[in-house]
This record gives sequence, structure tokens and C-alpha cells, in this order.
Amino acid sequence: MAEVLEPLERLTDMFRRLDGVGKKSAARYAFCVLNFSDEEAAEFARAILAAKTEIKKCAVCQNITTDEICPICQNENRDHRTICVVEDPRALLAIEKTRQYGGVYHVLHGTISPMRGVTPDRLTIKDLLARLGDPEHPVDEVILATNPTVEGEATAMYVAKLIAPFGVKVTRIANGVPVGGDLEYADEVTLRRAMEGRYTLA
Amino acid sequence: MAEVLEPLERLTDMFRRLDGVGKKSAARYAFCVLNFSDEEAAEFARAILAAKTEIKKCAVCQNITTDEICPICQNENRDHRTICVVEDPRALLAIEKTRQYGGVYHVLHGTISPMRGVTPDRLTIKDLLARLGDPEHPVDEVILATNPTVEGEATAMYVAKLIAPFGVKVTRIANGVPVGGDLEYADEVTLRRAMEGRYTLA
Repeated sequence: MAEVLEPLERLTDMFRRLDGVGKKSAARYAFCVLNFSDEEAAEFARAILAAKTEIKKCAVCQNITTDEICPICQNENRDHRTICVVEDPRALLAIEKTRQYGGVYHVLHGTISPMRGVTPDRLTIKDLLARLGDPEHPVDEVILATNPTVEGEATAMYVAKLIAPFGVKVTRIANGVPVGGDLEYADEVTLRRAMEGRYTLA
Repeated sequence: MAEVLEPLERLTDMFRRLDGVGKKSAARYAFCVLNFSDEEAAEFARAILAAKTEIKKCAVCQNITTDEICPICQNENRDHRTICVVEDPRALLAIEKTRQYGGVYHVLHGTISPMRGVTPDRLTIKDLLARLGDPEHPVDEVILATNPTVEGEATAMYVAKLIAPFGVKVTRIANGVPVGGDLEYADEVTLRRAMEGRYTLA
């Protein structure tokens, strides 16, 4: 049998930790890296470390940013009385691309999923409640824009219940977004319709 | 608009350089890395650098190895008079898994592809000819086991022509391997049939 190359195995294992990467793809990616120039490989390694060290979470909305507070939260032209709650930064980007939404965001960084061991305390729900409880920054409406999946819906319902005591309007984006899909892959018109057609939950 | 995060963009660009990774997948992988622990990210970066520095090409067969000469070329129990020519180390591994082949290998590291700018001199064809011209290590047969794709067939024909003057038997693996496919994804029985059914080219 051919030798087992430890460094190649270790690299393949790292690629397998990426979402949606199986055994064959991981091995293919590892071989690609072997064909990189030394400079390219060094650049790749540096890019990984830089992304981890330079990108942090916004102290207000928890979106990823290189600043202490992200440009959206710092922007005084935006409506800070409307908070749109999304699962992750990619969903936020998708909504920003519609150029229709002028409020601010709150990024949960996941959905509640007992199956995968994600309990509510692993998300940034506490930070959202803290924002709603801050008398200096009153909020009129919270738009729940988690994905229209089973987990996204459940998370929206869970968050809606916790928000109810604060007496703010809680809305959910309309099902213009195809059910079962992912916000990131929705086209801009569909996303725009979903934002416009939001209905009251509580 | 949300801010453009330079470190994230750079990391996404690196992932896009991997074979078969598009824009959306690259972005997904980059976000995955953000969710890695610091330790995991450091491990990933180290794995990339280690793979590049510790893995080299065997001085004889050009297969990847951590030694100067790979274990297969060093193995005296193998038949050094039969050389199986493959496109890449993954094809070699696939053949080794059948446990039917007792000869040695030669890894081309690609196929001739004018479309992608891969000219014959970019492959290890010269090294193969040097092996055949070495009077101290006579060769009886060269098995051309490049993939049964257009480029793999063309490369096999090209190599066969160059080998002809050496007066060695040149064979090609049988089309038991599904045409248009990739050696790496063939099951072991199919690969075994392909090895057994090889026919004479020159």
C-alpha cells in the first residue's frame, strides 16, 4: 500500500470541518493546496489567521466587523427604532443588497437546534433583550427575519415570546421567501416582497 | 450598505482558488472559519504550511511523499519492470486500494490541456523517459492509466508515441472504467477489471 502522508491527512481533516464538505471534496481541496505555490499557501494560512484576529462582533448588533461598533450601528441616518433579527451575517448582507431596509440589525449567529445541541443561550438572544430593555435607545419594532425553515421558524417563535413583555411590535417577514430555502440564496425581489409583506406576531 | 470586510474577502478569495469551489461555497467556507475557535484556525493555518513544506515529490516516480524516495519505489518486493503511469496521486491511491497491482508507478501530475495552458513540459513526462532510458533499471511494460477522459486519452496517446522508440510494451487500461469519469471515483472491482483487461497500444 502507498504511504499515509500525515501532513496531507491533517489538512484533509481541517477541510472536512467546513460546512458541507465531505471526505472526497476535502481530499480534493488538500491536493489543490499541494499544487499551490509556496507563496500562495503562505497567503492562505495568513488569510485564515487574519480573518480570525481582525474580525470581531459588533458590541451592539453582534454582526461581524473590524471595528468595535459596526458601520450600520454607527450610521445615524438609519432608523435605530427598528431592529431586524437575522440568523447570520450572510442573511444581513442579503437584506442590505435589496437597499430597501433602513433600520438596524441583530445577528443571532445561529438558530435554536436541540438536534445539533444549539440551545438558546448559545445565540445572542440575551444581547437582543438587553437592547430592548435600554431606556436610552427605545425600539418600536422587531422584525424577525430568520430563515423560513423549521429551525428558523421555531427560533422566531421563541424570540417573539421573550420579546412580548417589552411591548414592542414584533413582525415576521412574509413567506415571499420560498419556504424551506435559505435567505442567502433568495433573489432581491423576493426578499424585498418578504420585507414589505411582514405580518404582526405579537 | 454593510461594510466590506477585507480579511473575509481575502479568505473567500483563497477558498475560490480550490478546484470546484464557486463564489457561494467560498463565502460559506470563510464564514465557517470565523466560527472556528482560535486554536482550530491556528491548526488549519499550520496544516496548510506543513503540507506544503513536508510533502515533496519522489525522486523516482514523482508521487508525493515525505521521504526522498517513496515507499513504493523503495519496496524490493514490487515489480520494478512494470510502470503504471497515472495522472495524479489520487489515481495511484485508487489503484493501490485494489491490492491487485504489484508494479511501480509514474505520476504525471496532470494531463496535457492546451485549453488550460498545460503543455507536455509541465508534466513529468521527461522523468518517465529518463527512467526508460536507464540501462541499470530495465523496464518491460508501461501501463498508461490516465483517466478515460478526452484529456486523459490524448495524454496517453502522446506518451505512448514518445515511449515507442524505447521498445517497451505499452498498454492502456481497459474501458471497464466508465468513460468520461474519474479514476478516483471508480469502485475497486471496476478498477481491477480495467487493470486486467488492458490492451496493447504499441
